Amino acid sequence: MSGKKIERALISVFDKTGIIDFAKELGCMGIEILSTGGTYDALTKAGIKCIKIEDFTGQKEFFGGRVKTLHPLIHGGILSLRDEEARSLDIKPIDIVVVNLYPFETIVEKGVKNIDELIEMIDIGGPTMLRSAAKNNKFTCPVCDPIFYGLIIEELKNGMISDRTRFNMAIEVFKRTSYYDSLITNILSQFQDDKAKDLFENKFTIPLKKEIDMRYGENPHQKASFYSIPDYSENKLCSFYTDGKLHGKELSYNNLADISSVMRILSDLDENSCVIVKHSNPCGAASRTTTHESFMSAYEGDRVSIFGGIVGFKGVLSAETAKILKDIFLEIIIAKSYDKEALEILSQKKNIRLMEYGKWSDKIFNDDAVETKKILGGYLFQQKDVNNPYNEEFKTVTKKTPEAEYIEDLKFAQAIVKNVKSNAIVVVKNKMIYGVGAGQMNRVTAAKIALDWAGKSTQGAVIGSDAFFPMDDTVKLAAERGIKAIIQPGGSIKDEDSIKACDELGISMIFTGIRHFLH
Amino acid sequence: MSGKKIERALISVFDKTGIIDFAKELGCMGIEILSTGGTYDALTKAGIKCIKIEDFTGQKEFFGGRVKTLHPLIHGGILSLRDEEARSLDIKPIDIVVVNLYPFETIVEKGVKNIDELIEMIDIGGPTMLRSAAKNNKFTCPVCDPIFYGLIIEELKNGMISDRTRFNMAIEVFKRTSYYDSLITNILSQFQDDKAKDLFENKFTIPLKKEIDMRYGENPHQKASFYSIPDYSENKLCSFYTDGKLHGKELSYNNLADISSVMRILSDLDENSCVIVKHSNPCGAASRTTTHESFMSAYEGDRVSIFGGIVGFKGVLSAETAKILKDIFLEIIIAKSYDKEALEILSQKKNIRLMEYGKWSDKIFNDDAVETKKILGGYLFQQKDVNNPYNEEFKTVTKKTPEAEYIEDLKFAQAIVKNVKSNAIVVVKNKMIYGVGAGQMNRVTAAKIALDWAGKSTQGAVIGSDAFFPMDDTVKLAAERGIKAIIQPGGSIKDEDSIKACDELGISMIFTGIRHFLH
Repeated sequence: MSGKKIERALISVFDKTGIIDFAKELGCMGIEILSTGGTYDALTKAGIKCIKIEDFTGQKEFFGGRVKTLHPLIHGGILSLRDEEARSLDIKPIDIVVVNLYPFETIVEKGVKNIDELIEMIDIGGPTMLRSAAKNNKFTCPVCDPIFYGLIIEELKNGMISDRTRFNMAIEVFKRTSYYDSLITNILSQFQDDKAKDLFENKFTIPLKKEIDMRYGENPHQKASFYSIPDYSENKLCSFYTDGKLHGKELSYNNLADISSVMRILSDLDENSCVIVKHSNPCGAASRTTTHESFMSAYEGDRVSIFGGIVGFKGVLSAETAKILKDIFLEIIIAKSYDKEALEILSQKKNIRLMEYGKWSDKIFNDDAVETKKILGGYLFQQKDVNNPYNEEFKTVTKKTPEAEYIEDLKFAQAIVKNVKSNAIVVVKNKMIYGVGAGQMNRVTAAKIALDWAGKSTQGAVIGSDAFFPMDDTVKLAAERGIKAIIQPGGSIKDEDSIKACDELGISMIFTGIRHFLH
Repeated sequence: MSGKKIERALISVFDKTGIIDFAKELGCMGIEILSTGGTYDALTKAGIKCIKIEDFTGQKEFFGGRVKTLHPLIHGGILSLRDEEARSLDIKPIDIVVVNLYPFETIVEKGVKNIDELIEMIDIGGPTMLRSAAKNNKFTCPVCDPIFYGLIIEELKNGMISDRTRFNMAIEVFKRTSYYDSLITNILSQFQDDKAKDLFENKFTIPLKKEIDMRYGENPHQKASFYSIPDYSENKLCSFYTDGKLHGKELSYNNLADISSVMRILSDLDENSCVIVKHSNPCGAASRTTTHESFMSAYEGDRVSIFGGIVGFKGVLSAETAKILKDIFLEIIIAKSYDKEALEILSQKKNIRLMEYGKWSDKIFNDDAVETKKILGGYLFQQKDVNNPYNEEFKTVTKKTPEAEYIEDLKFAQAIVKNVKSNAIVVVKNKMIYGVGAGQMNRVTAAKIALDWAGKSTQGAVIGSDAFFPMDDTVKLAAERGIKAIIQPGGSIKDEDSIKACDELGISMIFTGIRHFLH
């Protein structure tokens, strides 16, 4: 087909960017232009000669334009194999199809929530013409976006549109239509009753829209971007990373992942809590009546790891705290909001990023999305672990029941350990972290790390574990260090050994029945 | 509209499952049936009265059926608002649209790679009719899959199709069409030259197909499934988890993630290496001339963590090794292949899963896919860290150059530390792991954990670090324990402190310039 004369183009665009210039160029090359309603008016007004679709088909459009291009002469022209049959039927070939779609996405992003308005914006004729042209890309060239006009004109000036370009343009069409219909699915599903929804369907697509191009990924030699799923809700979560940033350098890939970890941990803690995160693990955390007290305790628990870390506050950050934070090297501070003076103090630091999440609180703390992990050969999807550790059943399995003073610490330990990478053990006293054993390949090593980190503070502390104890060694170690109570899910075939060790050593132990692995 | 009489149904299906019974039921209710080519023949043969589309439109189909339903009377009938205009134009309403699509996916899964055959299977008319009906779901009901026939008949028997069902059926359509076009995009893109491809496009979709429904996710209270992206290649990677399993219980969510980690680590190691993984981190690994020697060394490095772990072999698993493995509690063994006797020995263990990856070797060890991580409000995408640690630049920054005997150990340490969760430090001697500090919030703690784990074996060993040393404390600690050489990326503003400490303590240090964070 290459080199064949381009006789005819069909132009029907909602987004009229660049269309006049493009059509003029086509016209100058002697290409006949077919056009519809609004596009026809715009082109004619600009002095470009074109033929109305209804004059071409001999069929008046009806239903307010719902049916105008769905016609055999149009699709015959687009899908024509330019062979004897086409000539015998006198079907005039349409060589270029310039179409962009009704702006379903735009009205979604404008926050339109009226189902009738949304449905009215679903384009039927446009995707069909583009898909017809894409299928017949051996002969016909679809052009689904103004960004391609320059390329097409350039090639036409050299005499033809190349096979390569027609094929690439076809792929652009299917990208566009799949995204369009995937977004429609997502939006319409929000009007469905829950019974009709299936979290883990047999087949589905996710419509991904780039929000931020990162300088790089986890490491400088890896490219990366952040994508969202467009929605019409107010305070879209994806805008937190941009609109929620009050000050500082651009956010990196690791920053976004760490911010996400901070918010995940805060969602499990009381108001006014503070958490310090490094490499997605909490290294300090405390729950006190003010954010300042919480920070001071969180900081006390680990003055080393905070270097280059992220500090999150479930509440207002005060000037008092800001004066201390300004002398610590931190990547990011996150708070519900900032006292005016606190913001002034911290804004003096050029590199630190200051994030304010207040506007997004409800969404952040009610986020129960499905999680995804890319593995070899595919994707794992799972429900997020939204189990509230404060509401879990407490079943005392030892002779000794935990003293009242340890109950809050045990709950706090459970909330923290849920958010530490597995295997995880945490040491807690007075609702603050004294030690964390994270990401270990066996449980007793996790316990050792946490207890060593806590040092002498293990006296009178409690420990929490994300999963059961496979043997009694952790209990024995804990008792040696003065631990008073243990919280863990239970469920090992050797639970009895651990319970027996607790009873012998005068420790109380709680089973929750809920494991909290996190990898 | 509810309660309005259903006058007319259009049926045009590629997959004829259940269509006869369904059409018969419609016919018995006095619903007029319009139909196309193959469907018309099947229905007529079964004695069901129906009208040919071309008799309904008065337009003969042409281009071998490429253009038959793209007609104003069809789409007018589907999109009709059943109002005065429709009546005045004498457009007969089509109330039910029963269409399923050309089996693009089926021919993809059959391994068809011929681009013309693939393109020929792209359906144009079908998606258009379904999308028209879905848009007009206030009046028209699309039915895109035989699984819905029962529901439709049931409702019709009760007198009408409900608003809720028509709306749900509309959503099913957009799911189907987005998946269809997303898959087309993916497949056609494989015929594109690389220059035209953009890893991180502004908008895209991923076509996800469920492969395995898991009993649960990371924890028992989380639902989970595994999905693949359909392709036409031989030895699809996703089938490794099913076809590659020679023996044992079904795989869990955590198993799949761990298998993925094992293969990622093996891809960075020499032939005949062995690795033991727990919670996605290697706790033992060695490279020797036989898989048996590799295993014995890997096992020697940590006899505790292997409990409930996963052992991976980059080669053939021998009976000699199997005899030892059978007495260890393991979740999974993975090998390129198994000696007959080895398989017999291990198959006696009921619960262990035995995986053989030989058929997928090329794909596994050349997998450079983009990685995804779900975070708050969206998805992070990044290139996989495929940098080959064995080919990295070795720049000696200390006075002392590492002795020849340490070079291989340094390379091995770099290959391992790349695959340990950050912050990571590993202790290596004779190309085996003696200690791993994984997932720590500060570097010196990671070093301490790794060195403590190694115990006395640190004498004459080397250490590797996934990122730079923020200060000289790690060097000093390493020297105390008898470490001879260090490999790390470098890049800290305090690099000079670490270099100076090495020089004073007689240690050699290599900078690679390549960081390997992994979270």
